[in-house]
Amino acid sequence: MDCYDIMKRITTHRGVKQLVVINKEGLPLRTFPAESGGLEDSQIQSLHELAGAARRMVRDVDPTDDLMFLRVCSKTDEILVSPDMSFTVVVFQENYEKQAATV
Amino acid sequence: MDCYDIMKRITTHRGVKQLVVINKEGLPLRTFPAESGGLEDSQIQSLHELAGAARRMVRDVDPTDDLMFLRVCSKTDEILVSPDMSFTVVVFQENYEKQAATV
Repeated sequence: MDCYDIMKRITTHRGVKQLVVINKEGLPLRTFPAESGGLEDSQIQSLHELAGAARRMVRDVDPTDDLMFLRVCSKTDEILVSPDMSFTVVVFQENYEKQAATV
Repeated sequence: MDCYDIMKRITTHRGVKQLVVINKEGLPLRTFPAESGGLEDSQIQSLHELAGAARRMVRDVDPTDDLMFLRVCSKTDEILVSPDMSFTVVVFQENYEKQAATV
Protein backbone atom coordinates (compact mmCIF):
# COMPACT_ATOMS: atom_id res chain seq x y z
CA MET A 1 0.00 0.00 0.00
CA ASP A 2 1.62 3.29 -1.05
CA CYS A 3 1.21 6.60 0.79
CA TYR A 4 -1.51 7.69 -1.65
CA ASP A 5 -3.64 4.75 -0.59
CA ILE A 6 -2.88 5.34 3.09
CA MET A 7 -4.01 8.93 2.86
CA LYS A 8 -7.17 8.00 0.97
CA ARG A 9 -7.91 5.40 3.64
CA ILE A 10 -7.47 7.97 6.44
CA THR A 11 -10.22 10.09 4.88
CA THR A 12 -12.62 7.14 5.06
CA HIS A 13 -12.39 7.15 8.89
CA ARG A 14 -15.60 8.39 10.51
CA GLY A 15 -15.59 12.15 11.12
CA VAL A 16 -12.61 12.92 8.85
CA LYS A 17 -13.50 15.83 6.55
CA GLN A 18 -10.22 16.45 4.78
CA LEU A 19 -6.54 15.50 4.63
CA VAL A 20 -4.05 17.93 3.13
CA VAL A 21 -0.36 17.44 2.37
CA ILE A 22 1.42 20.79 2.43
CA ASN A 23 4.96 21.70 1.39
CA LYS A 24 7.63 23.60 3.32
CA GLU A 25 6.14 26.93 2.19
CA GLY A 26 2.68 26.01 3.47
CA LEU A 27 1.18 25.44 0.02
CA PRO A 28 -1.16 22.46 -0.45
CA LEU A 29 0.43 19.69 -2.54
CA ARG A 30 -2.44 17.19 -2.32
CA THR A 31 -5.95 17.30 -0.86
CA PHE A 32 -8.11 14.28 -0.05
CA PRO A 33 -10.86 14.07 -1.03
CA ALA A 34 -9.81 16.19 -4.00
CA GLU A 35 -13.01 18.15 -4.30
CA SER A 36 -13.59 18.66 -0.55
CA GLY A 37 -14.78 22.02 0.76
CA GLY A 38 -12.80 21.85 4.00
CA LEU A 39 -9.92 24.19 4.80
CA GLU A 40 -9.14 27.03 2.39
CA ASP A 41 -5.60 27.73 1.18
CA SER A 42 -5.33 30.79 3.46
CA GLN A 43 -6.32 28.66 6.47
CA ILE A 44 -3.79 26.00 5.49
CA GLN A 45 -1.15 28.74 5.32
CA SER A 46 -2.17 29.91 8.85
CA LEU A 47 -1.86 26.32 10.06
CA HIS A 48 1.60 26.10 8.56
CA GLU A 49 2.58 29.27 10.44
CA LEU A 50 1.01 27.90 13.64
CA ALA A 51 3.08 24.71 13.32
CA GLY A 52 6.18 26.87 12.74
CA ALA A 53 5.47 28.88 15.90
CA ALA A 54 4.88 25.66 17.86
CA ARG A 55 8.19 24.24 16.60
CA ARG A 56 10.05 27.42 17.66
CA MET A 57 8.34 27.15 21.05
CA VAL A 58 9.45 23.51 21.50
CA ARG A 59 13.03 24.33 20.50
CA ASP A 60 13.07 27.35 22.80
CA VAL A 61 12.31 25.02 25.74
CA ASP A 62 14.90 22.43 24.59
CA PRO A 63 17.02 23.10 21.48
CA THR A 64 17.63 19.35 21.05
CA ASP A 65 13.89 18.63 20.92
CA ASP A 66 11.51 18.92 17.95
CA LEU A 67 7.79 19.22 17.26
CA MET A 68 6.16 15.87 16.50
CA PHE A 69 2.47 16.72 16.52
CA LEU A 70 0.04 19.58 17.04
CA ARG A 71 -3.63 19.08 17.90
CA VAL A 72 -6.02 22.04 17.75
CA CYS A 73 -9.38 21.13 19.34
CA SER A 74 -12.40 23.36 18.97
CA LYS A 75 -16.02 22.94 20.04
CA THR A 76 -16.90 21.18 16.79
CA ASP A 77 -13.68 20.13 15.03
CA GLU A 78 -10.12 18.97 15.48
CA ILE A 79 -7.14 19.87 13.30
CA LEU A 80 -4.21 17.46 13.55
CA VAL A 81 -0.87 18.69 12.22
CA SER A 82 2.03 16.29 11.73
CA PRO A 83 5.12 18.12 10.46
CA ASP A 84 8.03 16.32 8.79
CA MET A 85 11.27 17.41 7.09
CA SER A 86 9.91 18.15 3.64
CA PHE A 87 6.13 18.26 4.09
CA THR A 88 3.36 18.42 6.69
CA VAL A 89 0.22 16.29 6.85
CA VAL A 90 -2.94 18.03 8.14
CA VAL A 91 -6.13 16.14 9.03
CA PHE A 92 -9.34 18.12 9.55
CA GLN A 93 -12.03 16.13 11.39
CA GLU A 94 -15.03 16.39 13.69
CA ASN A 95 -13.95 16.45 17.29
CA TYR A 96 -14.09 13.21 19.27
CA GLU A 97 -17.20 14.06 21.32
CA LYS A 98 -19.15 15.02 18.21
CA GLN A 99 -18.09 11.76 16.53
CA ALA A 100 -19.06 9.71 19.61
CA ALA A 101 -22.48 11.46 19.71
CA THR A 102 -23.26 10.28 16.19
CA VAL A 103 -22.81 6.55 16.97
CA MET B 1 -12.01 20.25 46.84
CA ASP B 2 -11.25 23.78 45.56
CA CYS B 3 -9.42 24.54 42.31
CA TYR B 4 -6.13 25.04 44.21
CA ASP B 5 -6.29 21.42 45.40
CA ILE B 6 -7.30 20.19 41.95
CA MET B 7 -4.32 21.87 40.35
CA LYS B 8 -1.95 20.56 43.01
CA ARG B 9 -3.35 17.07 42.43
CA ILE B 10 -2.78 17.35 38.64
CA THR B 11 0.91 17.95 39.26
CA THR B 12 1.13 14.67 41.22
CA HIS B 13 0.22 12.69 38.08
CA ARG B 14 3.16 10.75 36.69
CA GLY B 15 5.17 12.71 34.14
CA VAL B 16 3.66 16.13 34.96
CA LYS B 17 6.47 18.67 35.38
CA GLN B 18 4.53 21.89 35.84
CA LEU B 19 1.08 23.47 35.78
CA VAL B 20 0.76 27.19 35.16
CA VAL B 21 -2.32 29.42 35.33
CA ILE B 22 -1.85 32.45 33.08
CA ASN B 23 -3.97 35.58 32.73
CA LYS B 24 -5.40 37.19 29.59
CA GLU B 25 -2.12 39.00 28.95
CA GLY B 26 -0.10 35.76 29.12
CA LEU B 27 1.44 36.49 32.51
CA PRO B 28 1.73 33.59 35.00
CA LEU B 29 -0.72 33.96 37.91
CA ARG B 30 0.13 30.68 39.68
CA THR B 31 2.71 27.94 39.13
CA PHE B 32 2.55 24.44 40.54
CA PRO B 33 4.84 23.28 42.01
CA ALA B 34 5.81 26.81 43.02
CA GLU B 35 9.55 26.36 42.80
CA SER B 36 9.54 24.26 39.60
CA GLY B 37 12.14 24.92 36.91
CA GLY B 38 9.81 24.14 33.98
CA LEU B 39 8.69 26.77 31.49
CA GLU B 40 10.16 30.27 31.72
CA ASP B 41 7.95 33.38 31.62
CA SER B 42 9.03 34.15 28.04
CA GLN B 43 8.02 30.63 26.97
CA ILE B 44 4.68 30.97 28.73
CA GLN B 45 4.16 34.23 26.85
CA SER B 46 4.95 32.43 23.54
CA LEU B 47 2.43 29.74 24.47
CA HIS B 48 -0.17 32.40 25.15
CA GLU B 49 0.47 33.85 21.68
CA LEU B 50 0.34 30.36 20.15
CA ALA B 51 -3.08 29.76 21.76
CA GLY B 52 -4.22 33.15 20.45
CA ALA B 53 -3.12 32.24 16.91
CA ALA B 54 -4.86 28.85 17.22
CA ARG B 55 -8.07 30.56 18.39
CA ARG B 56 -7.96 32.99 15.41
CA MET B 57 -7.40 29.98 13.12
CA VAL B 58 -10.44 28.13 14.56
CA ARG B 59 -12.65 31.22 14.21
CA ASP B 60 -11.42 31.82 10.68
CA VAL B 61 -12.70 28.33 9.72
CA ASP B 62 -16.02 28.86 11.59
CA PRO B 63 -16.74 32.20 13.32
CA THR B 64 -19.27 30.48 15.63
CA ASP B 65 -16.64 28.00 16.86
CA ASP B 66 -14.00 28.46 19.56
CA LEU B 67 -10.73 26.92 20.68
CA MET B 68 -11.17 24.36 23.46
CA PHE B 69 -7.74 22.77 23.70
CA LEU B 70 -4.28 22.86 22.17
CA ARG B 71 -1.78 20.00 22.46
CA VAL B 72 1.85 20.53 21.41
CA CYS B 73 3.69 17.19 21.28
CA SER B 74 7.45 17.05 20.93
CA LYS B 75 9.89 14.14 21.00
CA THR B 76 10.24 14.35 24.79
CA ASP B 77 7.41 16.51 26.16
CA GLU B 78 3.81 17.58 25.75
CA ILE B 79 2.36 21.01 26.44
CA LEU B 80 -1.39 21.07 27.00
CA VAL B 81 -3.11 24.45 26.75
CA SER B 82 -6.70 24.90 27.91
CA PRO B 83 -7.88 28.47 27.32
CA ASP B 84 -10.90 29.95 29.10
CA MET B 85 -12.55 33.40 29.23
CA SER B 86 -10.38 34.98 31.91
CA PHE B 87 -7.37 32.67 32.23
CA THR B 88 -5.57 29.75 30.57
CA VAL B 89 -4.29 26.57 32.21
CA VAL B 90 -1.04 25.13 30.83
CA VAL B 91 0.27 21.67 31.76
CA PHE B 92 3.86 20.78 30.87
CA GLN B 93 4.53 17.02 31.02
CA GLU B 94 6.63 14.19 29.59
CA ASN B 95 5.09 12.87 26.41
CA TYR B 96 2.96 9.72 26.61
CA GLU B 97 5.54 7.33 25.10
CA LYS B 98 8.24 8.52 27.47
CA GLN B 99 5.88 8.06 30.43
CA ALA B 100 4.88 4.56 29.24
CA ALA B 101 8.58 3.63 28.87
CA THR B 102 9.23 4.40 32.55
CA VAL B 103 6.57 1.96 33.84
